[in-house]
Amino acid sequence: MLKIEHIGIAVRNLETANKLFSILLNTEVYKEETVESEGVMTSFLKTGETKIELLQATGEQSPVSKFIEKKGEGIHHIAFEVENIKDAMKRLKESGFILLSEEPRVGADNKLVCFLHPKSTNGVLVEICQERK
Amino acid sequence: MLKIEHIGIAVRNLETANKLFSILLNTEVYKEETVESEGVMTSFLKTGETKIELLQATGEQSPVSKFIEKKGEGIHHIAFEVENIKDAMKRLKESGFILLSEEPRVGADNKLVCFLHPKSTNGVLVEICQERK
Repeated sequence: MLKIEHIGIAVRNLETANKLFSILLNTEVYKEETVESEGVMTSFLKTGETKIELLQATGEQSPVSKFIEKKGEGIHHIAFEVENIKDAMKRLKESGFILLSEEPRVGADNKLVCFLHPKSTNGVLVEICQERK
Repeated sequence: MLKIEHIGIAVRNLETANKLFSILLNTEVYKEETVESEGVMTSFLKTGETKIELLQATGEQSPVSKFIEKKGEGIHHIAFEVENIKDAMKRLKESGFILLSEEPRVGADNKLVCFLHPKSTNGVLVEICQERK
């Protein structure tokens, strides 16, 4: 694991959250992106070497919508950057972590991503990600 | 805000969580510390410029104990490092964020800390912290 690439925060309204986190972090949202396959609209703010990724659901079937329904707004996941996602997936699977996909998926921000089931990670939804070439 | 200083994760059993996160992050726990005033035993792992802080309650009245009772194990807070905590507290208060203490408190890892109420931060428990001189 190289570093925390980003922290994902589930919000009801991206526009409101953009304003709030801009003031909180004293920086601007530098990118917005919709990832239809994951059912999310996202926006990004930088803080040091890490990003804050705000996530609004695109519909009721979105995992983010279900998360908010169950737990309310708040921290949704932590994403760790890895050099080689396939190697990392293999290592983690062999160590007993439960992967949510057998192959890396295409996520936001030009990344290959894989999530680990929170029941294998102390209740934390962990994403591992690798920059796409 | 300079960077994400650490992410706090509430766990039931520090020893078990230490093992799990050591494997996950492929690194060792480098420090453990009990902060009686906050009702927590903590341990730290490094990942890039950020730390993962694992938190086990020292008793039933600990905020971490109440958090786990209500939400289960998982991400508890994000801590942002600031240069001057009093200036940051003043700026955030004036911007409408709700501070959980009027003055900085002494936290783990030789830090002055202040928390913001999650109802003013999209459900995220935010800590700001400054290294003590």
